[in-house]
Amino acid sequence: MHCELIAVGNELLTGRIVDTDSALIARRLAQIGIRVNRVVSVGDEVEFIQQALAESLVRSRLIFITGGLGPTSDDRTREAVAGLLNRQLVKDKDTLNKIQRLFQKRGTLMPKLAEKQAVIPANALIFENPVGMVPGMALEHQGSLIILLPGVPQELEALLDGAIVGFLKKRFSTEVFHQALIRTFSLVESQIAPKIERCLKDFSDVRVGYYPSVAGLDLIFTGPDQNSLKRCVQTVVRLLGRNVYTLEEKNLAEVVGELLRRQGLTVATAESCTGGLVGDLITGIPGSSDYYLGGVIAYANEVKQNLLGVSSVTLKKYGAVSSQTVGEMLRGVINITGADCAVAISGIAGPGGGTRMKPVGLVYIGTQVRKRIFIQKQLFSGTRELIKERAAWSALNQLRQLLIVPPGMKKIETKRQ
Amino acid sequence: MHCELIAVGNELLTGRIVDTDSALIARRLAQIGIRVNRVVSVGDEVEFIQQALAESLVRSRLIFITGGLGPTSDDRTREAVAGLLNRQLVKDKDTLNKIQRLFQKRGTLMPKLAEKQAVIPANALIFENPVGMVPGMALEHQGSLIILLPGVPQELEALLDGAIVGFLKKRFSTEVFHQALIRTFSLVESQIAPKIERCLKDFSDVRVGYYPSVAGLDLIFTGPDQNSLKRCVQTVVRLLGRNVYTLEEKNLAEVVGELLRRQGLTVATAESCTGGLVGDLITGIPGSSDYYLGGVIAYANEVKQNLLGVSSVTLKKYGAVSSQTVGEMLRGVINITGADCAVAISGIAGPGGGTRMKPVGLVYIGTQVRKRIFIQKQLFSGTRELIKERAAWSALNQLRQLLIVPPGMKKIETKRQ
Repeated sequence: MHCELIAVGNELLTGRIVDTDSALIARRLAQIGIRVNRVVSVGDEVEFIQQALAESLVRSRLIFITGGLGPTSDDRTREAVAGLLNRQLVKDKDTLNKIQRLFQKRGTLMPKLAEKQAVIPANALIFENPVGMVPGMALEHQGSLIILLPGVPQELEALLDGAIVGFLKKRFSTEVFHQALIRTFSLVESQIAPKIERCLKDFSDVRVGYYPSVAGLDLIFTGPDQNSLKRCVQTVVRLLGRNVYTLEEKNLAEVVGELLRRQGLTVATAESCTGGLVGDLITGIPGSSDYYLGGVIAYANEVKQNLLGVSSVTLKKYGAVSSQTVGEMLRGVINITGADCAVAISGIAGPGGGTRMKPVGLVYIGTQVRKRIFIQKQLFSGTRELIKERAAWSALNQLRQLLIVPPGMKKIETKRQ
Repeated sequence: MHCELIAVGNELLTGRIVDTDSALIARRLAQIGIRVNRVVSVGDEVEFIQQALAESLVRSRLIFITGGLGPTSDDRTREAVAGLLNRQLVKDKDTLNKIQRLFQKRGTLMPKLAEKQAVIPANALIFENPVGMVPGMALEHQGSLIILLPGVPQELEALLDGAIVGFLKKRFSTEVFHQALIRTFSLVESQIAPKIERCLKDFSDVRVGYYPSVAGLDLIFTGPDQNSLKRCVQTVVRLLGRNVYTLEEKNLAEVVGELLRRQGLTVATAESCTGGLVGDLITGIPGSSDYYLGGVIAYANEVKQNLLGVSSVTLKKYGAVSSQTVGEMLRGVINITGADCAVAISGIAGPGGGTRMKPVGLVYIGTQVRKRIFIQKQLFSGTRELIKERAAWSALNQLRQLLIVPPGMKKIETKRQ
């Protein structure tokens, strides 16, 4: 089935507002197995709305239009749709009564302008809005279903979850597909893709998409058969091993937090070049105060010495960006906070400050879980912001790896490179 | 001029990713006076990309296509565009060399698959990507200009700001408006807009756009006459007073950094609920090591006591979220780092942990510049992430205000509320 979404509003075309409405509709539709084929944003003018709808009608059996249903003069979606489909615009009595009641509740009379929100194209099916005035509407037109929804995100969500999704599920129940997620870290798309494509040869009905970001590489698998999809995901997870950090919608900070909580461990941070970003990511997770104690942002060398006890000899001999300094930062932050685990980072975020021996992007990342220590030298590329982000997410992944190593595994312990 | 944006990627059609790329392009284009008429998202298939591009070519003189330029089999934008325009696909030598160098830097050989990222449609103009592998490309086709850009937001932004916006400004210079920026903090759009619209009555050729974000409210003024625009901006700046923090493309962290550097002052941070975010924002600015010493992330009360010297009596009597605790955090972090200035924050980011007396969103922000101290109670709304961000940006603004107060102005000193 072909499905298209049309978002109406000048604010979308100036970039003032990001079109989260269409993403929300697409997610809800994906959950009931309806795939969106195209999303279009157009301005408030009747002509542009009609042009987009006319094009979609040629291709689609299901069309959503969001926005342009408010009371003011720039809200012209009703007019555009009714005009194109040759329908009358009529006042819906139930909706009008409801709007009047809402104004009464606020203690004011309904302004004349608000009546417009009760106007609907003739013969539309009405879905009551649980949190606002403008109802959802569904129109049948030559084998296509057109659904009009308000653009206010909260109202849109309430309408979708209240009645629209259920209505569509019933109506299109025969045509669904499933999806599954694998989140990975340290993998490069171009290196891993050929191996995954080979796996997929055994699952001809499954398709894969690659979604790289600074927080890792996500793989999304889709297919019509839930069993086949499940077996495919199991195969790929075996292939990728420890690089897979979750199959759920969680980031690395949340996964690390769960490992710490499950093992009853606390953690502290000692950050130089990331400047507090690791702490920010860890504390982005609700309930992180259960395992995160805090730490030190040791930006100046004096702070590394005075707060963390990094020795001046080490700083002089090896420099602030060295495995030796990071090792002492780990020891220092565990000493002063009493945490079971720690992350320490020192590096050169740039754009200045690099040398031939220690270029911009060079970062030492240290992680410690009880007595086990792992310090790794990394070289990141990109802007100052990207280097900070790459270092921070890598540090969380390194801590995760150390938290899942079985205690008997000595190989990784106290390794310095 | 008619301009359209095409975003390519199945992830946009499943709602997994919100199309922030198109909003970013639209904002940058608006700044050089180019209005976007339509935004379209389509899936990864060659057929759908070609269909969208063919439609846009009929209407538009300027078309952006983002995404689908990666190395894997689902990246098919090149192929689609070259096919539709009847162009060869060729390997660009400079880009290939650059990609090889990037892999060398990572210490690995370039995989065969990565070569695809150096493939371009013949006769395309190349824009080097400052932070990634895939370059931007511009193609002339029957009077229309088609620009292909990678979908990774950081790469897109770097390419736009690095060369593309300048290139377009020059090319479409006769149709371009002048623009001016005013960046403000603590202002609410709906309250300030009527006052600004009144100002604008004297400048009938100037238009204003409002761009609110968690980092402040930006006002962008556009008009055909540079002098009129300049006078208009001066009038509005007088109206908004100290809420204006810059007229340039700088954020509050950069403005605060400049004030510190100019006054020869250093700063340290003591963060509880923001968990390192203030440090992260400050160290986002190149050269921040000139004035930022570091600080403490005092998430657990034990860290507040042991590292910052907050007294157990204060914590017991007033709680961790109180002006008293924040006052002692300021004193503590200045004591241990020797900084001239400090920021201290304690609050409840939620979603749990709130009470009737101390609800989620309650945050105390303390700032100190030498002997002058200002502690403010704030109540922020939104998600955990938003509360953290609002608190961090507010803290920077509060420090800015204290840095620009003339030394003789006693009123604001040592105020606690």
